[in-house]
Amino acid sequence: MSISDDLYNSLNNERVFNIIAGPCAIESEEQINKEASFLNSMGIKFLRGGTFKARTAPESFQGLAADGVRMLSRVGNSFNMHTISEAQDTSQLEILVQHLDIIQVGARSMHNYALLEAIGRTDKPVILKRGFGSTVTEWINAANYIHRQGNSRIIMCERGIRTFSDSSRFTLDLAAVIRVRELTPWPVIVDPSHAAGIKNMVIPLAMASRAAGADGLMVEVHHDPENAMSDGAQSLNHNDFKTLIDRLNLINDNRQIY
Amino acid sequence: MSISDDLYNSLNNERVFNIIAGPCAIESEEQINKEASFLNSMGIKFLRGGTFKARTAPESFQGLAADGVRMLSRVGNSFNMHTISEAQDTSQLEILVQHLDIIQVGARSMHNYALLEAIGRTDKPVILKRGFGSTVTEWINAANYIHRQGNSRIIMCERGIRTFSDSSRFTLDLAAVIRVRELTPWPVIVDPSHAAGIKNMVIPLAMASRAAGADGLMVEVHHDPENAMSDGAQSLNHNDFKTLIDRLNLINDNRQIY
Amino acid sequence: MSISDDLYNSLNNERVFNIIAGPCAIESEEQINKEASFLNSMGIKFLRGGTFKARTAPESFQGLAADGVRMLSRVGNSFNMHTISEAQDTSQLEILVQHLDIIQVGARSMHNYALLEAIGRTDKPVILKRGFGSTVTEWINAANYIHRQGNSRIIMCERGIRTFSDSSRFTLDLAAVIRVRELTPWPVIVDPSHAAGIKNMVIPLAMASRAAGADGLMVEVHHDPENAMSDGAQSLNHNDFKTLIDRLNLINDNRQIY
Amino acid sequence: MSISDDLYNSLNNERVFNIIAGPCAIESEEQINKEASFLNSMGIKFLRGGTFKARTAPESFQGLAADGVRMLSRVGNSFNMHTISEAQDTSQLEILVQHLDIIQVGARSMHNYALLEAIGRTDKPVILKRGFGSTVTEWINAANYIHRQGNSRIIMCERGIRTFSDSSRFTLDLAAVIRVRELTPWPVIVDPSHAAGIKNMVIPLAMASRAAGADGLMVEVHHDPENAMSDGAQSLNHNDFKTLIDRLNLINDNRQIY
Repeated sequence: MSISDDLYNSLNNERVFNIIAGPCAIESEEQINKEASFLNSMGIKFLRGGTFKARTAPESFQGLAADGVRMLSRVGNSFNMHTISEAQDTSQLEILVQHLDIIQVGARSMHNYALLEAIGRTDKPVILKRGFGSTVTEWINAANYIHRQGNSRIIMCERGIRTFSDSSRFTLDLAAVIRVRELTPWPVIVDPSHAAGIKNMVIPLAMASRAAGADGLMVEVHHDPENAMSDGAQSLNHNDFKTLIDRLNLINDNRQIY
Repeated sequence: MSISDDLYNSLNNERVFNIIAGPCAIESEEQINKEASFLNSMGIKFLRGGTFKARTAPESFQGLAADGVRMLSRVGNSFNMHTISEAQDTSQLEILVQHLDIIQVGARSMHNYALLEAIGRTDKPVILKRGFGSTVTEWINAANYIHRQGNSRIIMCERGIRTFSDSSRFTLDLAAVIRVRELTPWPVIVDPSHAAGIKNMVIPLAMASRAAGADGLMVEVHHDPENAMSDGAQSLNHNDFKTLIDRLNLINDNRQIY
Repeated sequence: MSISDDLYNSLNNERVFNIIAGPCAIESEEQINKEASFLNSMGIKFLRGGTFKARTAPESFQGLAADGVRMLSRVGNSFNMHTISEAQDTSQLEILVQHLDIIQVGARSMHNYALLEAIGRTDKPVILKRGFGSTVTEWINAANYIHRQGNSRIIMCERGIRTFSDSSRFTLDLAAVIRVRELTPWPVIVDPSHAAGIKNMVIPLAMASRAAGADGLMVEVHHDPENAMSDGAQSLNHNDFKTLIDRLNLINDNRQIY
Repeated sequence: MSISDDLYNSLNNERVFNIIAGPCAIESEEQINKEASFLNSMGIKFLRGGTFKARTAPESFQGLAADGVRMLSRVGNSFNMHTISEAQDTSQLEILVQHLDIIQVGARSMHNYALLEAIGRTDKPVILKRGFGSTVTEWINAANYIHRQGNSRIIMCERGIRTFSDSSRFTLDLAAVIRVRELTPWPVIVDPSHAAGIKNMVIPLAMASRAAGADGLMVEVHHDPENAMSDGAQSLNHNDFKTLIDRLNLINDNRQIY
């Protein structure tokens, strides 16, 4: 079995509740080192960080790109953590595949079929986020674009949908987690940070996700959220993250967290 | 302190996770007796049952009305359970207040201000469901219609909102539960049955609700859902309900279930 | 044929595009007289005005109630205009039926089945607004609650639905107008004022409604919107209303406006 | 002034209501020739046809790709019509720019920032469709990705948003057309075909779009919709298209159609 299969199997393990954590954007090697050091001390094995960060508004911070990818790789290796970053275009795929362990497809790229097919031709595990305007049927169809090219190492990630509600930035659709776990062979994780939009909702939504049966979480963590270059409002600081893990351990579903 | 205050305080108790259960509609005294006997044996203290049941389609079963109210009252008394049913019009309020312990306002009546004000002039605890097209702001405003008339024994109930998602009948908005608990002094419970629309989602959504911090649940239970006169598809049978309680007990948040 | 049938037939006439206009709320006899005088001079035959005005927030202006109904009736009679106001509870129906020509059911009451059935037992034409969280199927079902009691003098009114869009207060669903005209025998009018939420969108949405085949409009008009006691932001002043009529006349669909 | 500027100016002309028409997918040179011949005879100057057609479901017809682009170019030239097709990935851009006059960005690519920037570095007019889960703010931000690279020849295209409504496939948001025309210097056209999802709604929604002030339309036309390889249900046949033009001419807004 390949390294990718080993990695995917560890993500698709019914006795484990996997946590993927890290900053929204990699800002410097010092910063990602700080986050990794902390997360590693907490037993976390999956380190995420944004590198190619085209944002909703073109004037926002756009990420460190290839430099960020290499920083993430170096830091991940030094802590023996698996690394994840997002591809937003086929042209970014080569460097991500060369240096990192898992490729992420963001919600805004869920319908980018050229990208899905290109990832389908690699052997890397892929985290496929649900488009915030997309149905479950469309989400599974997007996964099939990857699968048809030969790569079935797919992790589905629910991150909230667009609704009229004024309760949070997006509305977390936990019923979709339940449905996709019934309808597909793939694990389904939840990103409570983007759904919530604000920090104080991340922990209760993370708890709800585990309780609803999600296979894991992807959470934004920053050692100093108030000075983060992106998504500070929804990032947990290190103390918050400890609280998250403590709280998650209150759910006795016989799954180990790491 | 009044009986209503005692009752409300037992519903607004941080060390208890309250379960309100019973059939969508009361069909006969035999049936509601069967449900109550079972629920009582499980330690449940709140018995709900639909009596005035105007339904979305005018040709559906419309409930036993005043006869149903009296059946519910008799059966509740015999098991020493608190009773709850829904008022859909001011004209129904008198008999409900006379016989039952708690009045429910359904999602379709959340903007029925005459009804809200009339309930506000009683001393009964009231369960106010969120309209499925209503914002959190509007939901709290509706509660204030009751509160302004002098009745602040309010229990807020999230039951899912209308979205484009094909994952469930309504989309359960757990962020709204978190928000309303922050913004108001009132307990917030969740109705996973109406959100789900199908039985196999009720338990995971109930788990998620508890984990997100909801103060309790309202769940539809029927001894024979396949032959229920309404909402059979989303009702738990007695075995399912036992499973629900077992699963809820996996969340160690120091709250007792009853 | 009854007076009500004559009136309904004039509203259900393929060669006429009917305009119902007037203030959101009746504030005084002087005010409603001012609006009626103006509208009558423009050839408008249907005068609306809010009387029982329970609002989203309980501290807002709640209307002149029975006094407002009598003012509207007197002013309508003096200009020979047909009068319309909204019932929000069965208890308000008697006085409205006694004095006015047409009863309105608001979006927030679309699921108030007791009210629908009570109106169904009168012979008054009824304007049934679509609930902003309701499907077309549910809207037609609500109409059937009226129809089943013997009153089929129904006018359906689309007024926008809740969506995530930041373009207007509600999203006007013109496809629903087209569908309901196909599926039912009833005329379908549009309320562009509540959909828009701001004045400068009312005229283009009104134009779009006529062009899509709607049978008429209900529009909020106030001689001094900046000092209106409710919904000033979305009310047309008298000059705006003249512009509306001029613009509507650019659509040559062989229907006369009045 | 460049050819692209001339072309853009003809699309951004207040005295003209532009129609862009053609089949969802180019199926053969014979087919696109048939559509072009008909549309040209109707005075239409803009010929669209799908070439790179990655679809929601990976097993659907995926288009003729580069061959389709060349067919469209040849046929457009022979009738002296301007040609439009959609780019779904940066890798497709070169051949589209080489052969066609206008590049389209589809709703599912509205957040594909790499693609937007690459188009921003060409001088081609670009039709930017609104993502069906995107706000007006996000849509304008996406246009700014193009504009910042130096290309401001932008045509915005509303095509319906995701809502709960059962009236049509997507809900056409005409208020967004009005807002974007207020907030930006760019013309805004409407695609009623994708909003409607079924043929009999296309004409009334097209009428509504013109009446609301849209600058033009993009409409799917097929000589034999029942045998179309994609989107047959929402395509107008040639007779329907004639009816559309006749009906649009009923709106006397001093704009010439072509």
